[in-house]
Amino acid sequence: MEMAVQEALKAQGMTWTNPLVGAVLVKDNQVLATGYHHQFGREHAEVNTLSHLVNPKQAQGATLYVTLEPCSHYGKQPPCCKKVAEAGIKKVVIGQVDPHQIVAGKGIEYLESHGVQTEIIGGTENLNVAYNFFYHQKRPFVTLKYAMSIDGKINAAGKTRTIVTGDAAQVDVQKLRLHNQAILIGANTLRIDNPLLTVRIKNLPQPPIRIVLTKDANQLDFTSRMFKTHGEIWLLSRTELTQKVAENVHCYTAANWTPSKIVQLLADHEIQSLLVEGGSNVQSQFVAANLADEIVTYIAPLVLGGTALPAVFGQALAEKSDYQLLDVKRFNQDVRIRVRRKECLQE
Amino acid sequence: MEMAVQEALKAQGMTWTNPLVGAVLVKDNQVLATGYHHQFGREHAEVNTLSHLVNPKQAQGATLYVTLEPCSHYGKQPPCCKKVAEAGIKKVVIGQVDPHQIVAGKGIEYLESHGVQTEIIGGTENLNVAYNFFYHQKRPFVTLKYAMSIDGKINAAGKTRTIVTGDAAQVDVQKLRLHNQAILIGANTLRIDNPLLTVRIKNLPQPPIRIVLTKDANQLDFTSRMFKTHGEIWLLSRTELTQKVAENVHCYTAANWTPSKIVQLLADHEIQSLLVEGGSNVQSQFVAANLADEIVTYIAPLVLGGTALPAVFGQALAEKSDYQLLDVKRFNQDVRIRVRRKECLQE
Repeated sequence: MEMAVQEALKAQGMTWTNPLVGAVLVKDNQVLATGYHHQFGREHAEVNTLSHLVNPKQAQGATLYVTLEPCSHYGKQPPCCKKVAEAGIKKVVIGQVDPHQIVAGKGIEYLESHGVQTEIIGGTENLNVAYNFFYHQKRPFVTLKYAMSIDGKINAAGKTRTIVTGDAAQVDVQKLRLHNQAILIGANTLRIDNPLLTVRIKNLPQPPIRIVLTKDANQLDFTSRMFKTHGEIWLLSRTELTQKVAENVHCYTAANWTPSKIVQLLADHEIQSLLVEGGSNVQSQFVAANLADEIVTYIAPLVLGGTALPAVFGQALAEKSDYQLLDVKRFNQDVRIRVRRKECLQE
Repeated sequence: MEMAVQEALKAQGMTWTNPLVGAVLVKDNQVLATGYHHQFGREHAEVNTLSHLVNPKQAQGATLYVTLEPCSHYGKQPPCCKKVAEAGIKKVVIGQVDPHQIVAGKGIEYLESHGVQTEIIGGTENLNVAYNFFYHQKRPFVTLKYAMSIDGKINAAGKTRTIVTGDAAQVDVQKLRLHNQAILIGANTLRIDNPLLTVRIKNLPQPPIRIVLTKDANQLDFTSRMFKTHGEIWLLSRTELTQKVAENVHCYTAANWTPSKIVQLLADHEIQSLLVEGGSNVQSQFVAANLADEIVTYIAPLVLGGTALPAVFGQALAEKSDYQLLDVKRFNQDVRIRVRRKECLQE
């Protein structure tokens, strides 16, 4: 199964709202073939694995290890269960049941009723944290990310951008973006940091949707770097956008874009994951709404002092949120700490 | 020499303003005796080591490894150099030269002029960071310590104390206090946290002096827990103390106790190390004055939100201070990060 997980990981960032899935076909203690779901809309891991056999008959009597329950429905691809059963596979060892309502045990039922043994062994849930969360909680998994000084500040006092972390940490942020279908910033961050919010380490068929939260979309600077790139951009504004903008820019309006309303909009669009990249007021709204499922912070060995901008600033917390430490990792001079909301861990 | 360092460490917190020193006596690849400076005012490591020999004549022709240059002056103890030469030791391998003006190479000169070979190999400087710093910089080494939430806050909004870290991190703070001769807090921290600031993991002959920075010492609550304990307490106040206080409490007055004035007062008393334990305004003054040589922060997996008290808050930084990451360590759910001012590392 570990080998199947490694297969699945090859498609990081490529499968959009589809889960990462890997598979390994084994007979007589020998690996016959491996495969994975390469990209959203392309063949699933099971079929990809079978396609790597020199002779399809090899699959007869073999055991398939697959990180996620094989699907049982006709979507962009015919159901994998059918293919698995038809191939003569004797047993399917499954990492986790698919939480998607359309599958959710039906794949296993199909296999069993067609004479294929199944076994669920668990342990592959971390491959698709947001996917699993989304189908259980009906809303995207929200990650807050910020780089801060050792005194908890994200920017020096003043209006210009402070580069806090080093190159290695910045590459890691790129990896974090790979796992998210949407990235949100506030209008202040757009103005001060002028970020691209793109994934530059991999060419993605569906890059994350970039979202700017603003009181008035008409006040945004459309000459910002972000607006010169391809890929979808959403503006969440209180007022209608009156000026003409590029085709990749969409404006949604509401009287007040609270974190729960933002998350609902994303859920309506079947977006499973959101990365909030600042600024401090936006971060404070998400933690106050108890909608920060994971926090990833990069801490740099510098001090920005008593008038610099705190990482989280503005809105008060209704109640203290408890998190669990996931891991700590050094990136040269910077330290990354990841914590996850305790409620999330139990879900 | 590593063995000598381990010997030295046995006296952590016990030697007050004296350095930690360990020694190992070796002949024919065999350890004859080990020893260390046990306590302020007691015999030095060299003499302690020699006292462990069954027969003093064993020292003849032996090599002494000692973490710090043997002293050459009459202080509380007769000079170690004399004892070493008289014992017939052939060679002394020295970890580092003693920066104290009273020694500073004179020990080595004495040995050489009395027919004892010497060799300085380096690598033991970390045993006595504050001691070395003090004799080079003529002021105490200042460490800032704070426990903060993952969003950079030391206390929830409001006036009551927030327990941020777990037990293991709190025990580590006790170890940190062992290495400091003075501990400073602001009057707000005294009022809100009501801390003891004592070292409870070891019975110290000279516990750190506890210092409270206040505008008016007469406004302090002398029923606070701290005032019910033994051990020296200093109040740094703008106004004279008019009320009668216990014998262990001393009040120093100045128009304005800036960090540099505080550090000067300590230097005048030959105090080599200061641990600043909050609150956020005091921390901001020390970083603004570029008088935070080391920062030790414990980061806990909880969020205190946008209106909670930042770790460092108040005074602006004149310029960005660059630090070097020393180490990262987990204490169960908490993470300790230690950084040191870059200038300090070069000193």
